[in-house]
Amino acid sequence: MIDDFADSGRTILDRCDEFAQFTEEPDRLTRSYGSPALAAAMARAADWMSEAGLSVRRDAAGNLIGRLAAADPGAPTLLLGSHLDSVRDAGKYDGPLGVLTALAALDRARAQGPFPFHVDVVAFADEEGLRFRTAYLGSRAFAGAFDPALLELTDAAGIALREACLAAGGDPEALAAGVARPERLLGYVEAHIEQGPTLESLDVPVGVVSTIAGQTRVNATFRGEAGHAGTVRMMHRRDALSGAAEFVLAAERQARGKAGLYITVGHLVVSPGASNVIPGEVRLTADVRSANDGVRERALVELRAAATDIASRRRLELDWRVVPGNAAVPMDRELTQRLANAIDACGYPVHHLPSGAGHDAVMLARLCPVAMLFVRCKGGVSHNPAESVSAEDAAATVAVLARFLDDARTSLS
Amino acid sequence: MIDDFADSGRTILDRCDEFAQFTEEPDRLTRSYGSPALAAAMARAADWMSEAGLSVRRDAAGNLIGRLAAADPGAPTLLLGSHLDSVRDAGKYDGPLGVLTALAALDRARAQGPFPFHVDVVAFADEEGLRFRTAYLGSRAFAGAFDPALLELTDAAGIALREACLAAGGDPEALAAGVARPERLLGYVEAHIEQGPTLESLDVPVGVVSTIAGQTRVNATFRGEAGHAGTVRMMHRRDALSGAAEFVLAAERQARGKAGLYITVGHLVVSPGASNVIPGEVRLTADVRSANDGVRERALVELRAAATDIASRRRLELDWRVVPGNAAVPMDRELTQRLANAIDACGYPVHHLPSGAGHDAVMLARLCPVAMLFVRCKGGVSHNPAESVSAEDAAATVAVLARFLDDARTSLS
Repeated sequence: MIDDFADSGRTILDRCDEFAQFTEEPDRLTRSYGSPALAAAMARAADWMSEAGLSVRRDAAGNLIGRLAAADPGAPTLLLGSHLDSVRDAGKYDGPLGVLTALAALDRARAQGPFPFHVDVVAFADEEGLRFRTAYLGSRAFAGAFDPALLELTDAAGIALREACLAAGGDPEALAAGVARPERLLGYVEAHIEQGPTLESLDVPVGVVSTIAGQTRVNATFRGEAGHAGTVRMMHRRDALSGAAEFVLAAERQARGKAGLYITVGHLVVSPGASNVIPGEVRLTADVRSANDGVRERALVELRAAATDIASRRRLELDWRVVPGNAAVPMDRELTQRLANAIDACGYPVHHLPSGAGHDAVMLARLCPVAMLFVRCKGGVSHNPAESVSAEDAAATVAVLARFLDDARTSLS
Repeated sequence: MIDDFADSGRTILDRCDEFAQFTEEPDRLTRSYGSPALAAAMARAADWMSEAGLSVRRDAAGNLIGRLAAADPGAPTLLLGSHLDSVRDAGKYDGPLGVLTALAALDRARAQGPFPFHVDVVAFADEEGLRFRTAYLGSRAFAGAFDPALLELTDAAGIALREACLAAGGDPEALAAGVARPERLLGYVEAHIEQGPTLESLDVPVGVVSTIAGQTRVNATFRGEAGHAGTVRMMHRRDALSGAAEFVLAAERQARGKAGLYITVGHLVVSPGASNVIPGEVRLTADVRSANDGVRERALVELRAAATDIASRRRLELDWRVVPGNAAVPMDRELTQRLANAIDACGYPVHHLPSGAGHDAVMLARLCPVAMLFVRCKGGVSHNPAESVSAEDAAATVAVLARFLDDARTSLS
């Protein structure tokens, strides 16, 4: 049966390659909210949606929505999709794969007959939060959870989110006013690369997500005293980088000591940053995740205690800001069972696994039942140009989603 | 006697304040080679030299030279001076104090009669090496030790040193051709803030430098694998920042364990640098100094061994580049004795101390005898906006240099 979908798989990989050309940095893939690169990718996606016979629109945040409308305008809506923005120096599949497999599956399933509900394929405009350091801007707005104060956020160049929203084809005023969504939503289903090694180690193309891990980000600053690298005695130094280095290792030790806990210091900036000046200040982030909210919350307490202890021993000032994150999000039981049934019907073994990464489904869960399908990726590598998905696994994803849609046609309401 | 110089001290501090307005960054003092800010400071210094009756010229590197000529054009030359460029977020006295005290002392001493040698006050255009990460560009050129290949160095914006040299009022072609310096040089004397706490703890305004510490910089890169912060298991990570953090702490431990050894990691950049991406690469510098060359050389070997061990344990790649530095530079015995005599004649106790910081005197030592006078600074703080020198200590510096010149008039040849 999968042979029927082989062409779909190859087309999807070709389209991911095409998307990868839309980048704001030479020689690497970076596509942030409001960038010309994202606008180009969105325009290309809109072409493909139109070619597939969907009616295309943009919402106030600049999310792209392609609709296969039901005969009854008052029918409920089923949502499929993922995002088209990326991290810096990204891979090609994180996001685009979910949009393109949804589009291909819908194209396949509609050939079997009309749906009694609208089907919307959504390409979210900001999931990674690269530019404004706030994840899920696109799906947050879609879910009606956008705080108008966010419009004043600025990027590294001082450009406000308000302006970026305009550049993204959105409407900041409408965004601030909030989204009215009177229609009934049947659910949101997102396919996404696993970004981890589990499916590969199990030798299966797809799996069903059980829970999306909760995550919290901390913005911490260690402040010491800048000084001359050749004259301030070692014992007299208040070196902010030495303190930050201790913190990085403490965070690593803590996460290694607890199953299912992930802590990452991914961003770290040294000031003034000259080779002959003792670092006076270090700003860094700590990203803390677990599928178990209790584990994550205890980790935050311990992490802060470690930072406080380091700062105190080294006579550094510590600034510790916890960015409001999200608790673990369990997937909807019924929708997830439908995905599992589709996997089984396609002849694959069914595996359930948690997601360590956040996804637009986190925001959509505020709105309607959500379920996610994970797709095997090579070596579990993601957020990296080496990200790799096979055409066979892309085809399997389309087959499973098409089967899910076929079954939903008669039984989802 | 010092009361005579009180006005000089206050004028010098006022002039340092005036220099501090010439900066390339708002709200903090940063004056790099070839910047409009440095050009403005040089122009102001040229005004003051002219007002003092010196004939002013610029050399091929953009160094500013004010000459009080002897009656005999074939007479030898005595050099005084320091630099006018700065580190990022600098203090006001590191460099300018040496130029301004030289100018004031010469103005005072010439009133006592003519000199049988030319006296050149030099304001070097690049000592800190902030922009091109190569220290002593100005004095290196002055000393005829400039390698033309350096002209191809580029700054963070990709601008070549060749262009910066033009902007600095220099002549890159003449610089590449090398400096012919047929005249006989009697010596180079530089006053500079101590940038350390010794004179303050001894309660004396000035001291004589015994040796300038040797220094070496290492540019090291740890390369691991970027990956998703929520999905790559802790034990599978090849986190470049964790490796770099271990290195920072190993370097600190090593330097703390050896008297007179200073190691500083001042520059550290994380790639890709996003909060939700495991660091794939960290580039950093290690600045290694000691007045004892053997100590510094052994430290470099141990540092590399530590980095290699860390990289190996963590499955990281290590790139280790040692930038050619300089061995410790002992001051000229006779010239230093003359400075000591002048201090004594002014009624201050004479203290000899090593310099942990490098100075233009390192380069000038290739050319002629060199000696340095250190000036007390508050808390030993330098390379920091909190850098502070008292008007009394600036006055004492002028008094000592004027006395040195007075004595040199009849006995230096």
